[in-house]
Amino acid sequence: MNGREPERLARVALGRLGEPGDPRVATLVEGSGAVAVYQALLDQREHDGLLSDVAGRLAAIDPARDLDVADRLGIRFVIPGDAEWPTQLDDLGAAPPVQERGGAPMGLWVRGPLRLDEVEASVSVVGSRSATTYGAHVAGELAAVSARAGLVVVSGAAFGIDQAAHRGAVAAGGRSVAVLACGVDRPYPPAHRDLIEHLARTGAVVSELAPGCSPTRLRFLARNRMIAALTGGTVVVEAALRSGALNTANWASRLNRHLLGVPGPVTSAPSQGVHQLIRTGAATLVTSGEEVLEVLGRAGQHLLEVPRGPERPRDKLPLRQQQVLDAVPVSSSVGAESIARTAGLSLLEVGSALTRLRDHGLVEQAEGGWRLAGPVSR
Amino acid sequence: MNGREPERLARVALGRLGEPGDPRVATLVEGSGAVAVYQALLDQREHDGLLSDVAGRLAAIDPARDLDVADRLGIRFVIPGDAEWPTQLDDLGAAPPVQERGGAPMGLWVRGPLRLDEVEASVSVVGSRSATTYGAHVAGELAAVSARAGLVVVSGAAFGIDQAAHRGAVAAGGRSVAVLACGVDRPYPPAHRDLIEHLARTGAVVSELAPGCSPTRLRFLARNRMIAALTGGTVVVEAALRSGALNTANWASRLNRHLLGVPGPVTSAPSQGVHQLIRTGAATLVTSGEEVLEVLGRAGQHLLEVPRGPERPRDKLPLRQQQVLDAVPVSSSVGAESIARTAGLSLLEVGSALTRLRDHGLVEQAEGGWRLAGPVSR
Repeated sequence: MNGREPERLARVALGRLGEPGDPRVATLVEGSGAVAVYQALLDQREHDGLLSDVAGRLAAIDPARDLDVADRLGIRFVIPGDAEWPTQLDDLGAAPPVQERGGAPMGLWVRGPLRLDEVEASVSVVGSRSATTYGAHVAGELAAVSARAGLVVVSGAAFGIDQAAHRGAVAAGGRSVAVLACGVDRPYPPAHRDLIEHLARTGAVVSELAPGCSPTRLRFLARNRMIAALTGGTVVVEAALRSGALNTANWASRLNRHLLGVPGPVTSAPSQGVHQLIRTGAATLVTSGEEVLEVLGRAGQHLLEVPRGPERPRDKLPLRQQQVLDAVPVSSSVGAESIARTAGLSLLEVGSALTRLRDHGLVEQAEGGWRLAGPVSR
Repeated sequence: MNGREPERLARVALGRLGEPGDPRVATLVEGSGAVAVYQALLDQREHDGLLSDVAGRLAAIDPARDLDVADRLGIRFVIPGDAEWPTQLDDLGAAPPVQERGGAPMGLWVRGPLRLDEVEASVSVVGSRSATTYGAHVAGELAAVSARAGLVVVSGAAFGIDQAAHRGAVAAGGRSVAVLACGVDRPYPPAHRDLIEHLARTGAVVSELAPGCSPTRLRFLARNRMIAALTGGTVVVEAALRSGALNTANWASRLNRHLLGVPGPVTSAPSQGVHQLIRTGAATLVTSGEEVLEVLGRAGQHLLEVPRGPERPRDKLPLRQQQVLDAVPVSSSVGAESIARTAGLSLLEVGSALTRLRDHGLVEQAEGGWRLAGPVSR
């Protein structure tokens, strides 16, 4: 896997030279191949203005050393063509850039036992860093149900929804992947060092940035496209109107991934962004992990029955008794004749039905007449 | 208005003979006219089995007396052809029955100063009787905003959402209409006597049942079609999976009215029915009265801007400064050379931009380098 072939070396170098998600580098590589693009730069040949931008950095780059350092840290660099390469990322090559970020990554730096080609049956659970307890609870539940059913859960490593999703997946004994906007050896945020280390031992921690790199705003934006592209669908759980999670949601839509949204109180700012996604039809409303599985689980495996309320005693009655029950006033007691008139049935039929309904505890005799014994549906 | 012409008398009588929403009576009247159908019954001529069902009741019916009694109670009987007739109800004639209820009403018994032909610009706000404080709050707000904009608010008179909607409309100085499943002289539930009396003084209380009639389950189902048909759209605020409000929602869809739903926590049973309506695409998610007005207000009057988060300081920066800001690590301080490499800009440009960014309070110097001064967006 960690061979030293020219393709891998060229991709390490190009990943170092350009910022992640620089669509220009991705386009050049797609057109000419990584080896040719890198060789041209080494030969000081201009390529779409790239040389003048990176010339100052070229000399400092040593991809073989990068791979050695990574190797010692237990980090591998996975590239297209490797058996482990998650081929769903190739969809990024065809999607137009968003906010100047786009394109397939040069490769992925990975820590952890989970092979990335097993991430195809997966769901990303993303949302606000300033999640409410409600949002964190729901994210954890969705992730747990998804993980228990065999889906790999993918998220960032931020506070709030990201953290809750990983915790839910881990607690369910499932597999979870964190995609970082910095080197996979650099826990960010630092408070999540333990969480990230745990994922590196049990699942995977992934980045297109080389070990040692710091996170920046643009790198978070670039990272978001990876979360969307890696997974079969993205669930947004709480996202304020300018949450980064909406950027991930946007990528999911552009990549023709399923986009799902969890509603919340309309009075809750962290749900506003999700409501807008649902309202505009960009996202499908989901309320449970089961509904996520129905969309993202293996075909036919998780078909849900449309949820129905509990069956009521009335539902099991013969039609005639239902008609009589429907004619008993909800608020007062009346005589059997009045009920017969309302029901359009004979007094004999009504009398017999009322007796049966009384035996079922649905009506009772009072004040010389009949009235409903329980609460009535409107 | 309260003339004694044959059409009005026939409609009073037929309303008394059949249960509200009996599609058979409505169809006969639509085909032959109310006067002819009533006369045939009086002449003991069979009409689709109707005579055998109502023969016992025919003798007891005295429509002229009904109108006199109503008159003394300040109740009028409005029928098709009257200037006050809300013609949108005629849509009920074309819609197939639901749960054996359907068809246009024979007429409407009305208490209150509001003319029913003014109910066209209107919204119904319906939902669970066992509403949460959240649901009641949102229903009241939606109703208040709608009423303030001139829409008539229509609902039942039940506990929970119905009550909250009327209160919101009344408190906003707007007009509100209660549609009952019993006679308009019979406050049901009795605890809402004051509310219903208030609406009868300031708006309208409406029913297709003659004064004195009791509510039954079937009458509530029949009443629901009236709420949907009277209004331009129905907003469902909290409805459990078997709430009667879903029956109203179903009618709104069948009548090609707008159907809107207010989301809530997925952990809240009273929101489950609404979530299902939104999830299946039957209802559009709304989060505010303004969004209701955008759909139901007069055309072009209430176009909303798509809600956006607050503008951030970064948005106002020149592009070059944004690029530099994006290259400053979020977690640590680094030298200007490193920032220049990441940004792909010259050290001179970066130095000048960093100074300006510092003046804006966006970056700061620390530990011999630069770091972000505020929280960063992912």
